[in-house]
Amino acid sequence: MQSILLVAHGSRREASNNEVRRRVARLQTTAAPLQRDVRAAFLERASPSIPDGIQQCIDAGATEVTVLPYFLSAGRHVAADIPHQVRIKQDEHPDIKISIAPYLGSAAAIDDVLLSLV
Amino acid sequence: MQSILLVAHGSRREASNNEVRRRVARLQTTAAPLQRDVRAAFLERASPSIPDGIQQCIDAGATEVTVLPYFLSAGRHVAADIPHQVRIKQDEHPDIKISIAPYLGSAAAIDDVLLSLV
Repeated sequence: MQSILLVAHGSRREASNNEVRRRVARLQTTAAPLQRDVRAAFLERASPSIPDGIQQCIDAGATEVTVLPYFLSAGRHVAADIPHQVRIKQDEHPDIKISIAPYLGSAAAIDDVLLSLV
Repeated sequence: MQSILLVAHGSRREASNNEVRRRVARLQTTAAPLQRDVRAAFLERASPSIPDGIQQCIDAGATEVTVLPYFLSAGRHVAADIPHQVRIKQDEHPDIKISIAPYLGSAAAIDDVLLSLV
């Protein structure tokens, strides 16, 4: 099974973290018929952490985990912090394929989403 | 003319601000045939500020400015800081219609963009 782990920054404001969790709940509905499991994790300030989130995917039966950065820009978090935390779990579980998808802000399709909001 | 002002948080990391400016340049190409002008502004740490960005729109001939928050969650920035700065310019220019569009993260279409990245 493939798990998708949506990784957000995490906020002291729990309502923002819950907004991410609601998005994941919607994605889970879309992804379930495709035999995919979708979960949330947070870089900091909220739970689960990235390593704990990856572990939850593995415990649920994932053989492949795709980490999906819910970030708009390619800053240090996307370039270094997320890969660092993913590497720790990859070393612990060499039998699981853990990859990192392009971050949200890199998607050209965001342009159309933005114009649709106006 | 309608101007769209894409408002991002702003980063100390200039590459992140330039990523926003590149998105705006692409949106400008899409929007120009629709007689729309698209510009960038930043809540903090980068230029132009929101008031300066709105002023640039007006100076370019906008009669209507739509502020589009480039934010993923409905935190204090979206709920209070952006409206506060917009209100200052609206009071200065009662003849210009300045509105705030829903923030990016509120768009359900983001779900599809996320799944397309996996």
